[in-house]
Amino acid sequence: MPYDRDLVERVLAEARALVAEQLADLISRNRRTSYGPLYDLVADYPFREGKGLRPAICLAAARSAGGRADQVQVSAAALELFHNGFLVHDDIEDSSEFRRGAVTMLREFGAPIAINVGDATHVLALQLLLENTSHIGLHKALLVMREAERMARESVEGQAIELEWIRRGEFDLDDAAYIRMAHKKTCWYTVIAPLRIGVICGLDAGIDFPLAQELLPLIELGHSAGIAFQIADDLLNLEAEESLYGKEKAGDLWEGKRTVMLLHFLRTASEAARREAERILRTPRQRKTVRDVAWLRSALADAGSLEHGRRLALEYSERAHALDSRPFTYLQPSADRRFLSEMLSYVVERVK
Amino acid sequence: MPYDRDLVERVLAEARALVAEQLADLISRNRRTSYGPLYDLVADYPFREGKGLRPAICLAAARSAGGRADQVQVSAAALELFHNGFLVHDDIEDSSEFRRGAVTMLREFGAPIAINVGDATHVLALQLLLENTSHIGLHKALLVMREAERMARESVEGQAIELEWIRRGEFDLDDAAYIRMAHKKTCWYTVIAPLRIGVICGLDAGIDFPLAQELLPLIELGHSAGIAFQIADDLLNLEAEESLYGKEKAGDLWEGKRTVMLLHFLRTASEAARREAERILRTPRQRKTVRDVAWLRSALADAGSLEHGRRLALEYSERAHALDSRPFTYLQPSADRRFLSEMLSYVVERVK
Repeated sequence: MPYDRDLVERVLAEARALVAEQLADLISRNRRTSYGPLYDLVADYPFREGKGLRPAICLAAARSAGGRADQVQVSAAALELFHNGFLVHDDIEDSSEFRRGAVTMLREFGAPIAINVGDATHVLALQLLLENTSHIGLHKALLVMREAERMARESVEGQAIELEWIRRGEFDLDDAAYIRMAHKKTCWYTVIAPLRIGVICGLDAGIDFPLAQELLPLIELGHSAGIAFQIADDLLNLEAEESLYGKEKAGDLWEGKRTVMLLHFLRTASEAARREAERILRTPRQRKTVRDVAWLRSALADAGSLEHGRRLALEYSERAHALDSRPFTYLQPSADRRFLSEMLSYVVERVK
Repeated sequence: MPYDRDLVERVLAEARALVAEQLADLISRNRRTSYGPLYDLVADYPFREGKGLRPAICLAAARSAGGRADQVQVSAAALELFHNGFLVHDDIEDSSEFRRGAVTMLREFGAPIAINVGDATHVLALQLLLENTSHIGLHKALLVMREAERMARESVEGQAIELEWIRRGEFDLDDAAYIRMAHKKTCWYTVIAPLRIGVICGLDAGIDFPLAQELLPLIELGHSAGIAFQIADDLLNLEAEESLYGKEKAGDLWEGKRTVMLLHFLRTASEAARREAERILRTPRQRKTVRDVAWLRSALADAGSLEHGRRLALEYSERAHALDSRPFTYLQPSADRRFLSEMLSYVVERVK
């Protein structure tokens, strides 16, 4: 499934610039009027080079719905802040070492400061959502807040499911259980909310159809695209070059993270191999050895687990394409509309 | 400064019941429709017996302004959730062991789950703030959201200042520096926001004066009351019986927390005593000894540092009473209005 790389890269870059402008303004305002050093830390993750997938979906959806970039700028920036606040906290919860090519906030400043920076990032997101009233009016601003709240709620619930697996040492999980968790943890904030918020921001204020009803199919579309994205992301973690991907190679195995690939391996491995794998996975990351992790990585490859993941990601990408081909009356044909389709292949084909 | 204990206890109990009802409803709704186990954890801190000071201030302010309890119920419950989310995170940041008579979320479930529970608690607070539109109307609900956002922002900034002191090992701080920090960390969410949000909820919708202007004096009043509360709280930590106070005795010394008393001691102690105190304070809590902490505690008492704290708390309580005696045109004479005054003595006289 090739995709229009130029188009995708162009919209991603445009969205990154749009969000960077908004965040630079917000952060410099807060730095001036409040306790400045906190906002230097809050700015760290958002200004590390990310893909900008979420704001790009938001921007393209808004313009496809007939809106302009400036109508979605504040909302897209708020989404990025929610995302980055959760990244800072996730990195603590997972004891992660690297993020976007640099050490994590946790490793640089320790858990106490990192927890507070994550909280502050979420407060800034709320600040933007409230300022939104003067950009897109009260009605739309409130709809966007509701979407953001739903998105954040789904994210913490998905995270709770995953943390409970870790706490119980649960590895006996099928693809369906994984996908239910990732629906909450990944799909809502990576695709569903950006799509829905983009449409809300971009639509003509005189909306003449039942909006809640019309936005429902975006949940299913975002679900398929989000699952494809998450599995592809976990594959990259196992396979990509560190310099491209920005996290440590096979960091997920060091952390014992449940992925479609790992769970497939554990379901299909011999009793002995499974026992050895679980021993490694249960060992705290500081006491794991390079040799253990390397063994696990090649065991996954040998068992066809990477292949299983790749197949599943493609299946979800194709399902998303099928859902995307149905008519969305409020999305007009345009380069932005095309981005939303191309993005469904990009999420599984990207190399970083 | 004696206070009307019956009145204060009555409003506190009323506010606790009001908030408990709202939270029980919210949590049972979320438990039914979403991932239930997360909401059992979210319910933990809010249903431990606390004082209920914040919702009581909120309730009394609303009724003094002419409103009814049901108009402030959602906002008061949202405030409690913000507060409890921060408590869960603070307990991780400070490695605290006990909270309200039981072990902390950190100690029972570990940092990863506790971080996520704090985040989920904040998401629930946002959910309530959004549902508020159907209880008090769009205009007031938005004003309340702005107050909550400001309150949360001040809290994370105050926390950032304190964490930076800890990171730098900074102990050379005067009362003014401490009070600037506590203004942000404590005063906003303990007194200022509850007062302002209460008035906003309780006022007649047809407000006929410039509200922003009229609410300004509540910042100064809440500042004085909040500082008095915080110093008294830190004194209780050093002096109160564990069974009453709900935290471990002298937990602040174990954690090395900067308080007015500790900073006074460090400023006035002999060079040798100061060096010994700093050695103890810099020792991680797991490696501190009972003997060290006991020495520090009696050194503070001997140096008159507890007396210094008590004097300062009383001074701020008196300052709050002076500010409170000015006319607030929107607060009608009533038992609730009297609670707001009595509360200014209660914060320094309470025994738990």
